[in-house]
Amino acid sequence: MTGAGDLAPARLIVEAAELTRFTAASLRAAGASSADAAVTADVLVAADLAGVESHGVARLRRYVEGLKTGDINRDAVPEVVGDKGSVCVVDAHNGLGQPALCTAVDLAVGKAREYGTSAVMVRRSNHMGIAGWFAERAARAGMFAMVSTNAVPQVAPMGTSEPMFGTNPFCYAVPTAGGILCFDGATSVVSRGKLEQLDRTGKPMQTGWALGPDGRPSLDITGTVTGLINRKGHALLPLGGGEADHGGHKGSGLALFIELLCGPLAGARWSRHTYRGGEAGLGHFVFCLSLDALGDPGAIAAAAASLAREVQGAPGVDPQDPVRIPGERRHRFTRARLDHGIPVLESVLQDLNDLAELVGIGPVATVEHDLPAPQH
Amino acid sequence: MTGAGDLAPARLIVEAAELTRFTAASLRAAGASSADAAVTADVLVAADLAGVESHGVARLRRYVEGLKTGDINRDAVPEVVGDKGSVCVVDAHNGLGQPALCTAVDLAVGKAREYGTSAVMVRRSNHMGIAGWFAERAARAGMFAMVSTNAVPQVAPMGTSEPMFGTNPFCYAVPTAGGILCFDGATSVVSRGKLEQLDRTGKPMQTGWALGPDGRPSLDITGTVTGLINRKGHALLPLGGGEADHGGHKGSGLALFIELLCGPLAGARWSRHTYRGGEAGLGHFVFCLSLDALGDPGAIAAAAASLAREVQGAPGVDPQDPVRIPGERRHRFTRARLDHGIPVLESVLQDLNDLAELVGIGPVATVEHDLPAPQH
Repeated sequence: MTGAGDLAPARLIVEAAELTRFTAASLRAAGASSADAAVTADVLVAADLAGVESHGVARLRRYVEGLKTGDINRDAVPEVVGDKGSVCVVDAHNGLGQPALCTAVDLAVGKAREYGTSAVMVRRSNHMGIAGWFAERAARAGMFAMVSTNAVPQVAPMGTSEPMFGTNPFCYAVPTAGGILCFDGATSVVSRGKLEQLDRTGKPMQTGWALGPDGRPSLDITGTVTGLINRKGHALLPLGGGEADHGGHKGSGLALFIELLCGPLAGARWSRHTYRGGEAGLGHFVFCLSLDALGDPGAIAAAAASLAREVQGAPGVDPQDPVRIPGERRHRFTRARLDHGIPVLESVLQDLNDLAELVGIGPVATVEHDLPAPQH
Repeated sequence: MTGAGDLAPARLIVEAAELTRFTAASLRAAGASSADAAVTADVLVAADLAGVESHGVARLRRYVEGLKTGDINRDAVPEVVGDKGSVCVVDAHNGLGQPALCTAVDLAVGKAREYGTSAVMVRRSNHMGIAGWFAERAARAGMFAMVSTNAVPQVAPMGTSEPMFGTNPFCYAVPTAGGILCFDGATSVVSRGKLEQLDRTGKPMQTGWALGPDGRPSLDITGTVTGLINRKGHALLPLGGGEADHGGHKGSGLALFIELLCGPLAGARWSRHTYRGGEAGLGHFVFCLSLDALGDPGAIAAAAASLAREVQGAPGVDPQDPVRIPGERRHRFTRARLDHGIPVLESVLQDLNDLAELVGIGPVATVEHDLPAPQH
């Protein structure tokens, strides 16, 4: 019943269908509609399936508590408040982020089928899980898609130690003849979730990842995680770090790209204005480009697969470790965990069962026997 | 007549109008049409104005020689070979990259005015200078724009030492109430042009920038520059470097984003297939999103300016060095150099005058007196 490695904390196995059922039931019990609960549970469990536990059911408490306190509007119905040609603006009315962004993706796909390209922006929204789930949804519909969101400020642009940007994922997906290729990564060097994960397994922090309240590199991993959560002056560094020599200005420019689109352009809050007065006010954006509008989508998907195969086939620096293309690891995890169940930390499981009691539903069912863990 | 710093090589001052006139005259004398020569000269000199000399007239020889040998088709007229809703595909017919991409930007702006969003892809093209020039052109027309290109492979994705991607710039521009904000940066940690510049001034190479033919970090700056030019097994590293710990997989995913769009999606060549058989076969892409389609463009531009001002106003790690927003340095350079002239390296000037002789035009006129240099 333990994971791999001496320091790995104990985990129990939960089947994907059970984790999804439980998550949806918790959200419904907290006041979400059945449809909203279903899509939100799908997105959260997709992260656990993909091995991105920081964005999975470990976050369910915040959703359930948000719905119960009213910080997240349980009665919200995403509303199209702007619709001009291939562009829509959606007001999420402070509801759950997942249903709002799912609405936006489906609108964007429809618009791109009609016009060739589209952009849909969401305002007054909340946390929406992993961007990749949404980009892959659009890619399955034949789109080259970009999806992103802003978030609570945790990332300091180069030159300051003040967090001004969310971890603002850069995310795209495209259908290829070899399957959907999807990249989804925070525009910080590391995400807070990654730090939490390393902290749990006793791994050290590295320079170039985060700054302390004194504006100097922080090497205290627990302190950094706590400081980020409590907004006590810690900051993650953008991709490229805090210095121009390794491209910190480029990571800053990338995080700003997403903050601009999701904040000012979406008519949403941005940066330090998010999460004020009981409302997150986050923004999301979706861009779609239909392969159909470009030419023969089969030929394009075949060419994209060729490029991906050539990258994978480049000689590895370590011959044991072939070059990876984006999403490979997540897809491998997902296949294994759909077959063998999802390992959930005992501490997370305890929290889920405490939540169950809070909202008056039964506990999560775990699998009795230990299943083979997927290889990292 | 010398620049700042002991190691800075000698430079002569040329007025921007004269450098543009000379560049256009050289291109015309090499066979380009007046219109193609004019836009190409504008884009090249814009790089020199902005302090991005690696993309400026120092590259003119390759253009002139390409036109003369026929490697670049002097008679090419960009042709719209696909036009479906908001999407166009342009065949550059192996002509100069600048006129082809300029055509694409103008098409994209027109389409986005009509539909709200647009994408225009260019295939069978050549080097096109700085992406920022094109993104700013679209932003001046009220667009949030992305522009990029692929290029000769010089960047090794994480996990291999084989160059698979061009330096593939990530570039966007947006109109704000405080002026156009434009980010334009290679998706490698450093560009080859930056290495050449450091090499000329005797500055050292850093680990995490490039690999040698043995797949290990290269610290030999001259050897790396030569190796990259001659394709002798050197490779630049993607933003984030060669290791996952600092996000090398993210930089790789970003470079792949551009290679996918400019190669397979544009119907152009990609990666190691570029520059084969006397034709570069490069691809470019333009995305436009009209602020008009999103709502009140004035309000959006004001919000974008607020975000930019807040970032600039964040307390600096070094109080003497305020936080910069993308494009600030380039705009400052451009203002100063429009007023006071462009310092051009003596070696570059000599090369320009050799070119002039080759194509039978007069030399570049330099300014007699040394003008104040802009502050870096």
